[in-house]
Amino acid sequence: VLFERAAIVGVGLIGGSLGGAAKRAGLIGEIVGVGRGAANLAEARRRGFVDRTTSDLAAIGAVDLVVLAVPVLSTAAVARELRPHLRPGAVVSDAGSVKGAIVAALEEICLPECPVVGAHPIAGSEQSGAAAGRADLFVDSVCVLTPTPRTDAAALERVAALWRGVGARVERMDPAAHDRALAYTSHLVHAIAFALAKTVGDAGDEVVGLAGPSLRDATRVAASRGELWRDIFDANRAALLAAVDTFTARLLDLRAAVARGDDAALLALLDTARRARERLEGGR
Amino acid sequence: VLFERAAIVGVGLIGGSLGGAAKRAGLIGEIVGVGRGAANLAEARRRGFVDRTTSDLAAIGAVDLVVLAVPVLSTAAVARELRPHLRPGAVVSDAGSVKGAIVAALEEICLPECPVVGAHPIAGSEQSGAAAGRADLFVDSVCVLTPTPRTDAAALERVAALWRGVGARVERMDPAAHDRALAYTSHLVHAIAFALAKTVGDAGDEVVGLAGPSLRDATRVAASRGELWRDIFDANRAALLAAVDTFTARLLDLRAAVARGDDAALLALLDTARRARERLEGGR
Repeated sequence: VLFERAAIVGVGLIGGSLGGAAKRAGLIGEIVGVGRGAANLAEARRRGFVDRTTSDLAAIGAVDLVVLAVPVLSTAAVARELRPHLRPGAVVSDAGSVKGAIVAALEEICLPECPVVGAHPIAGSEQSGAAAGRADLFVDSVCVLTPTPRTDAAALERVAALWRGVGARVERMDPAAHDRALAYTSHLVHAIAFALAKTVGDAGDEVVGLAGPSLRDATRVAASRGELWRDIFDANRAALLAAVDTFTARLLDLRAAVARGDDAALLALLDTARRARERLEGGR
Repeated sequence: VLFERAAIVGVGLIGGSLGGAAKRAGLIGEIVGVGRGAANLAEARRRGFVDRTTSDLAAIGAVDLVVLAVPVLSTAAVARELRPHLRPGAVVSDAGSVKGAIVAALEEICLPECPVVGAHPIAGSEQSGAAAGRADLFVDSVCVLTPTPRTDAAALERVAALWRGVGARVERMDPAAHDRALAYTSHLVHAIAFALAKTVGDAGDEVVGLAGPSLRDATRVAASRGELWRDIFDANRAALLAAVDTFTARLLDLRAAVARGDDAALLALLDTARRARERLEGGR
C-alpha cells in the first residue's frame, strides 16, 4: 500500500470516488471519511468508498495522508482546523479546481512539518455527492499535480503514484499555469454555459420548447451547483476574467463579420475554429 | 403512400436520412435523389436512401413532392432552376434551418401553381453527407413547419404527415418566430462553440492538452462545416445578432459580479441559470 491510513475530508463526488478507487486498487490500508452531512457519509460507507466515517476532525490524528476534497474556498479553513491534529510527516493534499491561492495557503498552514501536494483530478460531472461517485471515475482522466519550490519530492511521488493507481494520467504544472489553463478549459466553459442557459430561459417558452441536442450539450454543465461554481469563479478571478474577455472578443469578431456581411472573414474564422476543435479531440 | 414520386434535391445528412426514413415507412412510392456530387449520390443509392439518382434537375418532372435539402442560401436558386420542370400541384418543401427569407422566396417562385410548405427538421449533427445519414435520424425529433397566409392547407397536412411518419413531432410556427427561436437554440449555440474553440486553440498547447469533457461537449458543433454555418448565419443575420447581444450581456453580468466580488448576485445568476437549464431538459 502507498499509505497505511488516509483521511478524505469531504466524501462527495470526487472524494468518494477517490476512496472507492483507492480501496479497489489496494492503495490505502484504511480510509476514514470525514464530513458534516450524516446522510452523505452514510452513503459513502454503504457504497464501500470509505472504511469508517466521522464528523470530528480531531478524530483523524493517526493518518499519513489527508485529502481535502471540499469546496475550494473552504480548503484553507479546514486545513487550519485539522493542522493541530496531524502527526509530523502526514502528507496534505487536495482536489480543488483552483490551485494558486489554495496551495499557497496550505503551505503556509502545514509546512514544514507536513508536506503539501496540490492536486486537481480533472474529472466529475454536473452531479455531486457520494451518490454520484464511481470507483472508475478517474480512469483515463488527467490529474494535474502542482508542485512549488517548497514541495517535498518524496511526498509528490507518493501522491502521483496514488493518482496513477486509480487510472489517471498525472501531469505536473506550476500552480499559476494550471489556473490559467483551467480558466479556459473549464471555468470559462461553465461561465458560458450558465450565461447561455439564462439567455435561452429568458427568451421564453416558444424558444425553450425548441431546444435540441446542441443546446443541451452546450448547457449541460449549467446544471452544476451554483455554490460550487461561485467559489471556483471567486478563487480564480483574475484568470477567469481574462479568459472571458478573450472569448468575448472572439465572439464579437464573429458578430462583426456577420453584421457587415464579410463572408470571407466569417468563413476564415469558422475554419480556424474547426481546426482548433480537432486539436481538442486529439488531446484525449 | 403519401406521395407517389418525390425528388429530394441534396441527399446529404438530412436529405439522405429523410429518403431512407420515408422508404422504410412506405410513405413515398419512388424517390429520386438529385445532386451534383457523384460519390455522394452513389452512397445514398448504395444505402437505399433513394431509388435512383440524377444530376439533371430537368429529369425530375413527374413528381408530386420536391424536398430541397440544400444549403440555405442555395435554396431559392435551385427552386428557380427547378420550377419550369414541375407539374402543377407538385408540393415544394425544404429542410432549411432558416425560414423567413427562404419561404418568402419559394412562394414568390412557385405559387400559385405549386404549393409551398416550409419545413425545418431539428436533427442532425456536426457530420455531413449521405455517409452520415440514418433512417432513424428523425425519431423523437421536432420538425417545425412554417405556414404563411398563402400556404395550401392540404399540402401542409401532407407534409406534416410525412414528418410524423418518419418519427418527428410536428410543430407549426410563423417563419419569423421560428427564426427568432432558432437564433437562440441553435445559431447562437454554434456561434459560441466556434468562438470558444478558437479562443482555446489560441491559448496554446498547454491549455489544449487539459481539455476535458465539458469543453469537448461545449465545442462539439464547432466541428461542423464552415460553409454551412456561414450561410445560416447570413440567412438569419438580424435574429442571430440580437441573440449574440443578449447572450453577451448576460455573460458580462456574470463577469461583473465576479469582478466586484458580489457573491450574492453571482449566486443568484447561477441559480437562475440552473433552473433555466432544467427547463431545457424538460422540453425533450
